Amino acid sequence: MQRRKFLRTAAAGGAAAAAAAGVAAPAIAQSMPELKWRLTSSFPKSLDTLYGAAESFSKKLAGLTDNKFQVRVFAAGEIVPGLQALDAVQNGTVEMCHTASYYFVGKDVTFGFDAGVPFGLTARQQNAWMQQGGGIQLMREFMADYNAVPFPAGNTGVQMGGWFRKELKTLDDLKGLKMRIPGLAGRVYAQLGVDVKLLPAGEIFPALERGVIDAAEFVGPYQDRRLGLHKAAKYLYTTGWHESSTVTELIVNKAAWDSLPPDLQEIVRAACGACQAISQAWCDATNTEALEDLITNQGVKAAPLPVEILAKLRDVTVQTLNDNAAKDPLVKKVHDSYMGFKKGWDKWAAISEGVYHSQIRGQI
Amino acid sequence: MQRRKFLRTAAAGGAAAAAAAGVAAPAIAQSMPELKWRLTSSFPKSLDTLYGAAESFSKKLAGLTDNKFQVRVFAAGEIVPGLQALDAVQNGTVEMCHTASYYFVGKDVTFGFDAGVPFGLTARQQNAWMQQGGGIQLMREFMADYNAVPFPAGNTGVQMGGWFRKELKTLDDLKGLKMRIPGLAGRVYAQLGVDVKLLPAGEIFPALERGVIDAAEFVGPYQDRRLGLHKAAKYLYTTGWHESSTVTELIVNKAAWDSLPPDLQEIVRAACGACQAISQAWCDATNTEALEDLITNQGVKAAPLPVEILAKLRDVTVQTLNDNAAKDPLVKKVHDSYMGFKKGWDKWAAISEGVYHSQIRGQI
Repeated sequence: MQRRKFLRTAAAGGAAAAAAAGVAAPAIAQSMPELKWRLTSSFPKSLDTLYGAAESFSKKLAGLTDNKFQVRVFAAGEIVPGLQALDAVQNGTVEMCHTASYYFVGKDVTFGFDAGVPFGLTARQQNAWMQQGGGIQLMREFMADYNAVPFPAGNTGVQMGGWFRKELKTLDDLKGLKMRIPGLAGRVYAQLGVDVKLLPAGEIFPALERGVIDAAEFVGPYQDRRLGLHKAAKYLYTTGWHESSTVTELIVNKAAWDSLPPDLQEIVRAACGACQAISQAWCDATNTEALEDLITNQGVKAAPLPVEILAKLRDVTVQTLNDNAAKDPLVKKVHDSYMGFKKGWDKWAAISEGVYHSQIRGQI
Repeated sequence: MQRRKFLRTAAAGGAAAAAAAGVAAPAIAQSMPELKWRLTSSFPKSLDTLYGAAESFSKKLAGLTDNKFQVRVFAAGEIVPGLQALDAVQNGTVEMCHTASYYFVGKDVTFGFDAGVPFGLTARQQNAWMQQGGGIQLMREFMADYNAVPFPAGNTGVQMGGWFRKELKTLDDLKGLKMRIPGLAGRVYAQLGVDVKLLPAGEIFPALERGVIDAAEFVGPYQDRRLGLHKAAKYLYTTGWHESSTVTELIVNKAAWDSLPPDLQEIVRAACGACQAISQAWCDATNTEALEDLITNQGVKAAPLPVEILAKLRDVTVQTLNDNAAKDPLVKKVHDSYMGFKKGWDKWAAISEGVYHSQIRGQI
């Protein structure tokens, strides 16, 4: 270790010392007037890996501007209910919201591609499509109709298939099963005979425990454990076919966005990028710990969905997505961009990350 | 589409309009004195997905500070040779460098964990370990001995196993094979009888073409195609056992870093985070296109390494890493943190992203 101690004594001088002398002590943002914005979240505080991303954005923004640009974060329901976050941005009630835009597929199914669609892109692919495949531009154009400027600001990664009170073996086991699962995935399950129920987060555990529902999808090991779902159902089907990646977004009111000088716009962009990286790392780290605990200490049986069921879910999903695209030229434009990018990237993933997953990890 | 046109007319008023009125037109950074720093890259300009990340950092930083914080990027060799980038930061010749820190394993094998080690973490795992698993703190402590403050600022993702003039079938095919592959991976191959050669990027193609070497590892489809490697060898072994993730980093001289006010430090951090996301998306998108072209139009045969070879490479790698850790308490501390995090995350990955790769993508 002596070697390291010796190295520590090396001089720092030269250009670096000159740089140190050249910087004024006061912070960069000192001349900026204070700016106070409000952000409404679609998530309750209890969903800390989701709600927390907005808090983390706000903190980051304050740090980047010497506390001059302050964004106050409101949980779902404090200003407007979680599912009205976009409306609040659109009509200028708040300057920004943090949400998952697939909540708004009832307004337009195009919103789904912004957050993620079943059997869609992984988190990494979604980032690449957004950054390099034209995804962000397409979403900007689309959301201009809502006075909205969206920025990817978080990602949960692939979610889990859900909790079931009984083991699933064949497609027949789905018939008549009462399951809590929202969105397009629910519509797909319904076509396989599932009796789909919509319940807010707080009602899932009691309904599952009392047998009012037989199964429930929520997020992943960490958040699901917080709801106690493992105490009401022991089978965790892990295949996240319905949410291979879920982007959460910061959406800014267009007029508010346009009012920012270019450097503050860059700062908002950078804060979103940083939050996305942090939120995904956080989800991954907390899910790792929670999964281990659930399997080792809580008697949870975790397994992928049976292939027969998964194959059928995929067929119905593909058909549903194609039907949506056929009905509307804008949906088709986004759908084709997303799926075209996926097709190329899947080939690349199969021999790069995919080889790592299948061959390096377990099979040798 | 009429619906969308209608929505466009909704008013933006309320808080957003107030916000617009409240922001002064001049930019946030107007009172800041100009700051001009120099950055030396370990990469030549021809490696655009690597060298380009530093350009992208510099541009991002200028945008975040209304052009007041200017970082001039120098390619490898313009100020110091690529492999002396860290020395130049340590002795204050420049304020920062952009590099892959495994270039410095000759100084200390601990540097390897910062960039990636064979059979190590994927890009996503590496981010999670850095952000949430204590990786960044460990690297900061370690590099303090070099007057260096490191920030992850890019990632190539998993790299390719390399180009071979002849097909590989068994371990015997490695004996006496002349291969260009640097670093720890080269030392592992050497133990399997490979005659390891060290050649700079510009010399790889002519050596491979003339048969001076039989095989060469470089980066991935996009960068390798730029060197023309596919014209000299037709077998591309895709298993990236040696570089499952390669982080490139911005490393700042400690005195220069300490001279920055907290908001400028946050801005540097945010610019690095943004560059990391952008560089990975860029590598993924360009590799996707290049791989398709190489296979479809250039007659390249792409396949994973035979399992017999891969298994032996892994055994030797694990032994080598363990030996390194046993020799030095600091290496052991970092090694144990890295591998401990990997062990937990691998379990999580196997049922989350891993299921997606193996089951959703190809096998149903």
